Amino acid sequence: MTTKPVERDAMLLALTLARRGPAGINPQVGAVILSPGGEILAEGWHRGAGTAHAEVDALSHLSPGDAAGATAIVTLEPCNHTGRTGPCTEALLDAGIARVVFALSDPGDASGGGAERLRAAGVQVEAGVCADEARDLLSSWLTVQVLGRPHVTVKWAQSLDGRAAAADGTSQWITGAQARSDVHVRRSRADAIVVGTGTVLADDPSLTARTPDGDLYDHQPRPVIIGERETPSDAAVQQHPLSPWFFPTHDLAQVLSELRGRGVHSVFIEGGPSLASAFLSRGLVDEVLIYTAPLLLGGDRLATTNIGVDSIGDAMRVNILHTTQLGADFLVIGAPLAASPADQGDL
Amino acid sequence: MTTKPVERDAMLLALTLARRGPAGINPQVGAVILSPGGEILAEGWHRGAGTAHAEVDALSHLSPGDAAGATAIVTLEPCNHTGRTGPCTEALLDAGIARVVFALSDPGDASGGGAERLRAAGVQVEAGVCADEARDLLSSWLTVQVLGRPHVTVKWAQSLDGRAAAADGTSQWITGAQARSDVHVRRSRADAIVVGTGTVLADDPSLTARTPDGDLYDHQPRPVIIGERETPSDAAVQQHPLSPWFFPTHDLAQVLSELRGRGVHSVFIEGGPSLASAFLSRGLVDEVLIYTAPLLLGGDRLATTNIGVDSIGDAMRVNILHTTQLGADFLVIGAPLAASPADQGDL
Ligand SMILES: NC(=O)c1ccc[n+]([C@@H]2O[C@H](COP(=O)([O-])OP(=O)(O)OC[C@H]3O[C@@H](n4cnc5c(N)ncnc54)[C@H](OP(=O)(O)O)[C@@H]3O)[C@@H](O)[C@H]2O)c1
Ligand SMILES: NC(=O)c1ccc[n+]([C@@H]2O[C@H](COP(=O)([O-])OP(=O)(O)OC[C@H]3O[C@@H](n4cnc5c(N)ncnc54)[C@H](OP(=O)(O)O)[C@@H]3O)[C@@H](O)[C@H]2O)c1
Repeated sequence: MTTKPVERDAMLLALTLARRGPAGINPQVGAVILSPGGEILAEGWHRGAGTAHAEVDALSHLSPGDAAGATAIVTLEPCNHTGRTGPCTEALLDAGIARVVFALSDPGDASGGGAERLRAAGVQVEAGVCADEARDLLSSWLTVQVLGRPHVTVKWAQSLDGRAAAADGTSQWITGAQARSDVHVRRSRADAIVVGTGTVLADDPSLTARTPDGDLYDHQPRPVIIGERETPSDAAVQQHPLSPWFFPTHDLAQVLSELRGRGVHSVFIEGGPSLASAFLSRGLVDEVLIYTAPLLLGGDRLATTNIGVDSIGDAMRVNILHTTQLGADFLVIGAPLAASPADQGDL
Repeated sequence: MTTKPVERDAMLLALTLARRGPAGINPQVGAVILSPGGEILAEGWHRGAGTAHAEVDALSHLSPGDAAGATAIVTLEPCNHTGRTGPCTEALLDAGIARVVFALSDPGDASGGGAERLRAAGVQVEAGVCADEARDLLSSWLTVQVLGRPHVTVKWAQSLDGRAAAADGTSQWITGAQARSDVHVRRSRADAIVVGTGTVLADDPSLTARTPDGDLYDHQPRPVIIGERETPSDAAVQQHPLSPWFFPTHDLAQVLSELRGRGVHSVFIEGGPSLASAFLSRGLVDEVLIYTAPLLLGGDRLATTNIGVDSIGDAMRVNILHTTQLGADFLVIGAPLAASPADQGDL
């Protein structure tokens, strides 16, 4: 059994419907109910945590019996568990749906298994239709499902010799305008921008994402400040268009879990050295962005502090994903790997 | 008046003769005496400090009067000062030389001015014949004349975060085989390889230049150890094909001056962090070679210590000359510049 063109068209419509919902803790999902003859009977989408799932939303527009023998087109595998709402599989079965076509399998341990349940109940199930398009839409949500936490990027600016600031603490500006504007673009793509209290107290950053002209980007990252010290009420970050979230703790895994619960898919950690190194040493970093300026500083203001490496054999290897030049500066993007023995040789 | 083909041929011969002499404190210089008809009357070259200069060596093969009206072809402007030997200008005038053709002007304050002296005495003088070839031959000697000291390269290997070793001091191997073999090639081109006593005592390096197979390159750099602590008699460097030179001092300018006096044109400083940083902070570095491995180390074993920079505005800017990838590692080659204000901007 293969998919009919009308079903693919309905899937593209369902993807468009999905985008109407908010990105967050829950995935953006859309659904279309097709009559056996291929006419659209109903449309639905998920409006966020606690509200009806897309297929249930679509069915809600129909009277009992209307969907008997119909086909449900859904962008994500119907869930098979009882969360804040009942399992979608049961709702589809109750409505008499005869065929289900979905784009992506649900990667969740608890929520997955819907396809199996439907097939066991005699429903025709087809998976993988427009899967690439659906993956694009849900990529950050899928990453969170796989990681079990938001995607974490750690960014720092440093001198050629790895210093984040000069001896007297001054660090504005190590890198040039092009590197800084690259940082702002990336800030604007993140859900949250995270710093330690040390950086807030030392630099009083605004933590907004701005164009080179100083205008705010449409999408702003949520400012997040970790640490027990208090942020002054007149700190620049208090003027951020999104009010800052404060986490007076040192438990970073707990912070990430809380952020995930608030619908954050990606965090951009901008320092300082203590917080960045704490994330690194706990193995909580998916990507490092190192902006290196063509200068030497020496001194003891380091871009990283202790990252839990004792011996060269335990070095935190980094898979270099990308290197580029930004004005006079260099950007290295890499993915930290689990510890592995260093290359052997002789002096 | 232009140069005759026979004179250019004689200059090329003089350059070949020059190469027979040793490279060192004094330049390699060759000379040919041509009769007014263009026949070679005599050849000469300089055999090193304290011996006759090339033109005097050539004249020494002739009987008094033989060179009357002849042309002297010399690769370097005849000197006009009394060093360990008398001024060559006077020797040429005494011999009755009527015309002098040379390749390069003497950049020395004391030794220069020969052309002027000769012209004033009525000798025809032509400069710049085969100047490029002569410059190639004498490039490292000329650099030393311009700098007033040997050319200094500082090399270090580091992690992405600027560490030269892990917390426990282990550093073998931060970088991979390709980076290490690049270092050995560069060692083999230097006149001297310099380390501090700290590196000798910590790592016991052999300081030889070796091929990837472990064979010694034909040309070995002189091992130089700076610092007051003693090098053990069983240290690996004591087995170096060239016996090590020890400088039990912290006065780096004095060491460079002494090395220059021993004919060293180029030194390759391989660490450690204290010595490299001391050279940097004294403004004695012409080139830095930074081999960066794709790993993070954290901790307090830094590739540089204090380089005399207090504030970001005093950062030691580096003119990046070349960047390349060597296996998984990166090499950045740069020339430190005099301090200049950093780029301005706002956070
Ligand atoms: N070059 C760059 O890219 C860059 C970027 C940012 C900052 N900086 C510089 O970095 C300096 C500030 O450095 P910093 O290291 O003090 O700042 P930081 O890393 O921003 O803040 C350190 C604070 O983070 C809190 N924290 C929360 N969880 C932690 C954990 N698991 N481990 C450690 N700390 C945790 C602690 O706050 P409490 O003590 O309040 O609990 C700690 O004191 C400034 O001079 C700034 O200019 C440079
Ligand atoms: N990653 C790399 O590229 C690399 C390369 C080399 C070494 N290393 C590591 O570096 C560590 C050794 O570090 P280090 O800094 O102790 O070694 P170092 O720089 O080789 O030696 C320091 C010593 O140099 C002498 N010195 C002479 N003039 C000086 C001056 N003007 N200023 C300061 N010192 C002067 C002093 O010796 P006295 O006290 O005897 O007078 C000083 O103690 C080892 O762990 C080694 O593995 C790494």
